[in-house]
Amino acid sequence: MRYAYLGPAGTFTEEALRQVAAPDEAVYLPQTDVGSAIAAVRSGDADRAVVAIESTAEGGVTATLDSLAAGSPLVIVREVLVPVQFTLVAPAGVRLADVRRIAAHPHAWVQCRRWLAAHLPHAVHVPATSNTAPAALLAQAAGDPAAVRALAFDAALVPPAAVGTYGLAPVAEHVADNPSALTRFVVVGPPGPVPAPTGADKTTLVVHLPDNEAGALLAMLEQFAVRGVNLSRIESRPIGDALGRYSFSIDAEGHVTDERMGEVLMGLHRRCPYVRFLGSYPRADAVAPLVHVGTSDADFVEARAWLDRLRGGDPA
Amino acid sequence: MRYAYLGPAGTFTEEALRQVAAPDEAVYLPQTDVGSAIAAVRSGDADRAVVAIESTAEGGVTATLDSLAAGSPLVIVREVLVPVQFTLVAPAGVRLADVRRIAAHPHAWVQCRRWLAAHLPHAVHVPATSNTAPAALLAQAAGDPAAVRALAFDAALVPPAAVGTYGLAPVAEHVADNPSALTRFVVVGPPGPVPAPTGADKTTLVVHLPDNEAGALLAMLEQFAVRGVNLSRIESRPIGDALGRYSFSIDAEGHVTDERMGEVLMGLHRRCPYVRFLGSYPRADAVAPLVHVGTSDADFVEARAWLDRLRGGDPA
Amino acid sequence: MRYAYLGPAGTFTEEALRQVAAPDEAVYLPQTDVGSAIAAVRSGDADRAVVAIESTAEGGVTATLDSLAAGSPLVIVREVLVPVQFTLVAPAGVRLADVRRIAAHPHAWVQCRRWLAAHLPHAVHVPATSNTAPAALLAQAAGDPAAVRALAFDAALVPPAAVGTYGLAPVAEHVADNPSALTRFVVVGPPGPVPAPTGADKTTLVVHLPDNEAGALLAMLEQFAVRGVNLSRIESRPIGDALGRYSFSIDAEGHVTDERMGEVLMGLHRRCPYVRFLGSYPRADAVAPLVHVGTSDADFVEARAWLDRLRGGDPA
Amino acid sequence: MRYAYLGPAGTFTEEALRQVAAPDEAVYLPQTDVGSAIAAVRSGDADRAVVAIESTAEGGVTATLDSLAAGSPLVIVREVLVPVQFTLVAPAGVRLADVRRIAAHPHAWVQCRRWLAAHLPHAVHVPATSNTAPAALLAQAAGDPAAVRALAFDAALVPPAAVGTYGLAPVAEHVADNPSALTRFVVVGPPGPVPAPTGADKTTLVVHLPDNEAGALLAMLEQFAVRGVNLSRIESRPIGDALGRYSFSIDAEGHVTDERMGEVLMGLHRRCPYVRFLGSYPRADAVAPLVHVGTSDADFVEARAWLDRLRGGDPA
Repeated sequence: MRYAYLGPAGTFTEEALRQVAAPDEAVYLPQTDVGSAIAAVRSGDADRAVVAIESTAEGGVTATLDSLAAGSPLVIVREVLVPVQFTLVAPAGVRLADVRRIAAHPHAWVQCRRWLAAHLPHAVHVPATSNTAPAALLAQAAGDPAAVRALAFDAALVPPAAVGTYGLAPVAEHVADNPSALTRFVVVGPPGPVPAPTGADKTTLVVHLPDNEAGALLAMLEQFAVRGVNLSRIESRPIGDALGRYSFSIDAEGHVTDERMGEVLMGLHRRCPYVRFLGSYPRADAVAPLVHVGTSDADFVEARAWLDRLRGGDPA
Repeated sequence: MRYAYLGPAGTFTEEALRQVAAPDEAVYLPQTDVGSAIAAVRSGDADRAVVAIESTAEGGVTATLDSLAAGSPLVIVREVLVPVQFTLVAPAGVRLADVRRIAAHPHAWVQCRRWLAAHLPHAVHVPATSNTAPAALLAQAAGDPAAVRALAFDAALVPPAAVGTYGLAPVAEHVADNPSALTRFVVVGPPGPVPAPTGADKTTLVVHLPDNEAGALLAMLEQFAVRGVNLSRIESRPIGDALGRYSFSIDAEGHVTDERMGEVLMGLHRRCPYVRFLGSYPRADAVAPLVHVGTSDADFVEARAWLDRLRGGDPA
Repeated sequence: MRYAYLGPAGTFTEEALRQVAAPDEAVYLPQTDVGSAIAAVRSGDADRAVVAIESTAEGGVTATLDSLAAGSPLVIVREVLVPVQFTLVAPAGVRLADVRRIAAHPHAWVQCRRWLAAHLPHAVHVPATSNTAPAALLAQAAGDPAAVRALAFDAALVPPAAVGTYGLAPVAEHVADNPSALTRFVVVGPPGPVPAPTGADKTTLVVHLPDNEAGALLAMLEQFAVRGVNLSRIESRPIGDALGRYSFSIDAEGHVTDERMGEVLMGLHRRCPYVRFLGSYPRADAVAPLVHVGTSDADFVEARAWLDRLRGGDPA
Repeated sequence: MRYAYLGPAGTFTEEALRQVAAPDEAVYLPQTDVGSAIAAVRSGDADRAVVAIESTAEGGVTATLDSLAAGSPLVIVREVLVPVQFTLVAPAGVRLADVRRIAAHPHAWVQCRRWLAAHLPHAVHVPATSNTAPAALLAQAAGDPAAVRALAFDAALVPPAAVGTYGLAPVAEHVADNPSALTRFVVVGPPGPVPAPTGADKTTLVVHLPDNEAGALLAMLEQFAVRGVNLSRIESRPIGDALGRYSFSIDAEGHVTDERMGEVLMGLHRRCPYVRFLGSYPRADAVAPLVHVGTSDADFVEARAWLDRLRGGDPA
């Protein structure tokens, strides 16, 4: 299997990819951006793309949502959660108390600010262009005291995956302000057999609303509510042709083969001008949804049998 | 065909029955009350019952609704509308201006009060025990001046159907305060093949709501709304076991074989503790329902094909 | 206080009235029917009417609902619950095992059928014209063996209130199939100060829906749901001018002075063609409603203060 | 008045600002980013900020939405629409047919791709770091043929506002693929008197939903629907503490002083954990909202008077 992902080695995305396939079992194809990773699947240059789709701090990843919402069909076949925690790394011999200048991507710095204020209140920020760039510089300078002294920083905040990749020395681990901060990645592939339902699945959709219809969003949500299907994420994205025209990116709890989800999907397909199915796949947290009274598959099957009897003239 | 109905000859119910089957093509089995007419079908003594189910002035006919809601299954196969208009009849030679005492069932009197105030302001009401009772008395007295003089009334308000039956002389026709007042009758039979859909049909249901569930009525109505099925009648009837426990008697626009109605019925069956199907049958007024966008049979069939493709791994 | 009620002495209605005012503290004005009792308040011949409004077995009492829904304004000031249980009474010396013929109003017979089948399987029904009529006959015959022998029955099912009134001898008490069967009575008076809220109140309304508006019932119910007000009863009654035109008689949980109820009432008044307020009064069962998050009076007052700040230019 | 905005001179934001206040009537304070412009108002360094909030192609402007949603209160007092159209400028004497290399910000290039394909199919893209950067370079080189020849491009796509600012020569105007593409800007200031209602206003809000409440989004939307208030924009933004926790940024049709909007706001305030009011201001397009039956201010006032009568004991 060839996996396209946001590289280079050592990124959070690579950490997600490692959860999916070990490096010796798959071909890792690092890309420079999310769009390229997804395009590699469309072109056939990769079998799968691993891309961030949502993060605690930033919400939906626009580039991923928009790349999946348009173009030739792709589907999500798996999701992976990666904690947003950093490792503070430094040249050999540097102790935490010595650190004054810290290289970090601005996003990383923002997400560790309170930790840094508590542990290194006098440290200053040396902006890096990516999460892994300072790791590479540290690795290059390693073992050459002059090179180390020439670095513009004493330590760097890098993804845990970069530590081993670049042979770095951790000074502090689990550096993060919000210990429950997560990034959610998805594994995207070409259309094909849907992953089997596990009982704890998600289904991802893109839905456009009818124009000029007051209450269209409400009506769309009722398609889910009336069949007892909950949403775990709903986000709007502009359709792009006029102000105020939005499409909705939705994660719904359940699998396309669930009867209740099937009826929701058909309802959306009938009432909305556009519905794109982006896959059903196991939830990373394996939490099964609450199944409301009368919405299990067995309830649907039984109701269908009853309706068939009614139509056949047997209302008993 | 043997038809049980609320007799005797000349009632509004007989007028409804005549719309269904002429006297020379069917056996008319007059009954003393609605419950007996319906029981005659259950016992096999009649093939069909013709019973009033709703009237402009009184709303749902409790005896009919309750008889159909419980007991062995029966279904409505047809509906018939009869105008609530009376004919003022009198012995031969009596002119409108002569009328002073009018025999009428109290319900008839109430529904003609304004007409009477305008045309016969000095007339007094002689209560009758049924709509046809004074017709029978007039018929008996006919041709015998002493008997006519012995009558307690000069004229009577009777159903138009009674005029011919009893050989009476009309003094005034179309007597009614509300010219659009109607009674709706239904033809009830044992379970069997459902009448073919005509495009302008009704489906009658009895539905119980889940206990102790705030918003249960709202949730039940949303089962209809989300599939674009309108209701033409909804009435509550007590379930009988505790105060505040009601079942709902519903007429919905459409036929059990309509895809949207099928999905509504299955939804009710899944979510409500009890649903009884009381038949799908042509509307007497032949008014086709408004079909909302995305709710035609073709829309359902197309959506099912799309879902089947999704489930088969083809999201295109 | 003069109370009009459905008489004569000994009825269930009198039992309800006794809960309201003892005979020595009020003037009891028995009437022949519910409409007359209500009319006596409108005419000023009585200060209050006590009338049945709902029963476990029959649901809403049509005569009461219709009399209150039209005509000059009246309001409900109190409700009273009376168990639907009968006392089997008989001439002195008659034992339960001797009873063969039982006088009972047909409604009473129906509600005791299972009890009778268990305890007096060979007894036959002697129909009575009212619940109290056989009590009066027994009282007249009392002490005169010939008169007792001349009665068409051995025993009678009468309301408990009739036992003392007519000086009768109970053979069996608490005779009923459904031990939780109740009739709900209301005390009706002319408009005036609304009974103070108790925290466990009901508000009774009559609401007409906009014509030709699909989903009008759903929209009306949402006026309640969105403010967290539950309904304890909803019944349809025909408006009377055309088939399918219904008004709704509603009991809502709460008091007109509750903020949430006030907003519901204003919402109904704004959106519905007709709303009649029939009073706020304490619940007989004193069960306080569940108050949903954000719907207490304090929540409304705080929200109003916040809005006033916003409008005044202070969004803090 | 001092206006902070995204500079330098010649940007689309400056074009928006010119609609608000001419340069000789106000102090223009160009800033390097949206966050700085908004911060300048919070710090008192500017009286107003003019910032993009939504565009046809990109949807909500994240930086603006997030800056307004948190921090000390600010309010929107006006909105301005600016067409997304570019002017192709070039050194004096260059004709359209001569153009081979076009400097353009990547976003600008994307939005003009079809126009360029039609008119300049052989032109190549020279990426610029901002919309105005190539305008400045052209202005510097103007009149110096050597400097002009040294430019890396023959022409540039710049905002129309930059043409006059930099004294440039237009080669083609109204360059855009989507002629109805717009960017919506808002004028933001400190809290203070709310702009008077015009009958065609918008109200902008940030709303958080209750946690773990299935249907919370549906319930929030019903607060609007039941009072007849439509939404013109709804977008989700992550709250930032956990995956799947979103706040909603909303534009609703109407003014905070409208009775129906006031009731919506109070309803949201009561039911949702957090509501931030971001201002009521005239719509740039001056389109008045459809006012549904029973939702005008007069309807609310009349309903309040009716409720007051009910509470005072007068239900007539």
